[in-house]
Amino acid sequence: MREIVLAARPQGEPKETDFELRDADEREPGDGEVLVRNVFVSVDPYMRGRMTGIRTYVDGYDVGAPIGGGAVGRVVASRHDGLSEGDWVSSMLGWREGGIVDGGTLRKLDPKLAPPSTALGALGMPGFTAWVGLQEIGQVKEGETIYVSGAAGAVGSAAVQIAKRKGLRVIGSAGSPEKVEWLRSLGAEAFDYRETPAREALADGIDVYFDNVGGEQLEAALNALREFGRVIACGSISRYNDEKPQPGPRNLAFVVTKRLRMQGFIVTDHVARFGDFVREVGPWVGDGTFDARETVLEGLENVPAAFAGLFHGDNTGKMLVRVGPDD
Amino acid sequence: MREIVLAARPQGEPKETDFELRDADEREPGDGEVLVRNVFVSVDPYMRGRMTGIRTYVDGYDVGAPIGGGAVGRVVASRHDGLSEGDWVSSMLGWREGGIVDGGTLRKLDPKLAPPSTALGALGMPGFTAWVGLQEIGQVKEGETIYVSGAAGAVGSAAVQIAKRKGLRVIGSAGSPEKVEWLRSLGAEAFDYRETPAREALADGIDVYFDNVGGEQLEAALNALREFGRVIACGSISRYNDEKPQPGPRNLAFVVTKRLRMQGFIVTDHVARFGDFVREVGPWVGDGTFDARETVLEGLENVPAAFAGLFHGDNTGKMLVRVGPDD
Repeated sequence: MREIVLAARPQGEPKETDFELRDADEREPGDGEVLVRNVFVSVDPYMRGRMTGIRTYVDGYDVGAPIGGGAVGRVVASRHDGLSEGDWVSSMLGWREGGIVDGGTLRKLDPKLAPPSTALGALGMPGFTAWVGLQEIGQVKEGETIYVSGAAGAVGSAAVQIAKRKGLRVIGSAGSPEKVEWLRSLGAEAFDYRETPAREALADGIDVYFDNVGGEQLEAALNALREFGRVIACGSISRYNDEKPQPGPRNLAFVVTKRLRMQGFIVTDHVARFGDFVREVGPWVGDGTFDARETVLEGLENVPAAFAGLFHGDNTGKMLVRVGPDD
Repeated sequence: MREIVLAARPQGEPKETDFELRDADEREPGDGEVLVRNVFVSVDPYMRGRMTGIRTYVDGYDVGAPIGGGAVGRVVASRHDGLSEGDWVSSMLGWREGGIVDGGTLRKLDPKLAPPSTALGALGMPGFTAWVGLQEIGQVKEGETIYVSGAAGAVGSAAVQIAKRKGLRVIGSAGSPEKVEWLRSLGAEAFDYRETPAREALADGIDVYFDNVGGEQLEAALNALREFGRVIACGSISRYNDEKPQPGPRNLAFVVTKRLRMQGFIVTDHVARFGDFVREVGPWVGDGTFDARETVLEGLENVPAAFAGLFHGDNTGKMLVRVGPDD
């Protein structure tokens, strides 16, 4: 089985040469361990930060070492109670075709409840991020207006759909006419940020801003926020490839005059709520009323391209790479 | 009695010619009204925003109209129950030698409990702002480290002293050796921001930042804040005279990675807590263990200079202008 290692720390946009495909060491699973064959590998914007090697809330990746991250696959051989050959599991195996892990770190998936790949998207970290951001951080209320940037991404599209279900008016931005169309089908008012300045699209005012993008969108949102508005600071994908830190918004003074609350969060701090999240959102995904759209590339060798594509908006919904057959 | 009107909207720093001294209309108090002679007039940084004429949380001042604001004085004649000649009162009469007001808008002061002028500082809006910011917004806890910028100002020096009483480690910055000395006498670790970069002074890390200043201090504080840190966004005096909005800090990404909460507030939203504040801080001011220092200029004609001086750090503690004798 092959794996991808970090060959060099990306400068600016991640390039193919920053990564290297190699054969992984193989061995038999020990006591309590499980051999997993990956079917889907996840690429997520937060991984860009780990490639800088600076420890933030999570360790940086080491040059020459494999790139850990979310993956979904099937058990090939198990020496862990409660997991058997053929089981679907989600793991942190990352960018590889499979490997051996401590069975205790795996989450068993029931493919009858929802497609297993959704454990990396709508029912995984991105969906949970949207749910935590809206409820715990933004404390959104029925009847409020929320603006979601990066709304056609994995987190954004979950935020749009959860906010709609909670009775909010939802405005979403994305970077293509097709994405805008999709967001409208989800019940959002949507605009293409390449065509329409956010300032214009948000002219009626908003109560909450779910920030996946940073930069100009944040500045426009600060202008549009009403008194006592909240910024759910989730990420700033427009900035992750910056080689130099860029200045912040010119209108932070609104934080005081409009009594805004801007709060950052990392979803892993909230794992205690994961069960509540799955109980609420799982049935929607299961019955198909929640659109868990995915953009799926094929083959481990295409993982770096899929990852780089996140920063160009190549994905609609969750970006995944299929690295093996379902069965 | 004379009053000061806004002659022109200041461009950049407020100048003498932006204001005009004139004789006020005089009349007798009507039913329920009180004629008050001002003794102290308050100048406060937030008034700069009102001079732009843009409504934020409070109306802008009109050109040609008097400048409302805090004042403390004595009743000359009363047609309001519960107020008699000679009573000390605090009012929103603003930059004038006195005037007629609805008695219901006045707060009667007891000069035996604390010097009446403190109703404009330590026991008034600035002290209450510090108290609300620390408790309601920052939710500070014993043992935490707080950084207060503008620490020798009216709000800052109250924040320093209240935070010390609540068992925090307090770091304060100010703009002269004398102010630094004073802050040290209040129990703060203090530095002169003109001499020492905040980044250096805060190298050990902080849990909370009480921001009175904005700009570079905010950027340094974001660097220094620990995980789950809070920014009490109170004001940004370094920016109030900017003619063009300036870019924000280059390190706002820390809001996410360190899960920071930055929250603005306006003290008038919290009036319901004013009684609690006075009950807690009043005795400290009364017994002299809380240093309610004031910088006092003399004469109504010097109010514009006192106001302009706020932006040059001319004050230590609360800046006031005495416009009449005590009795």
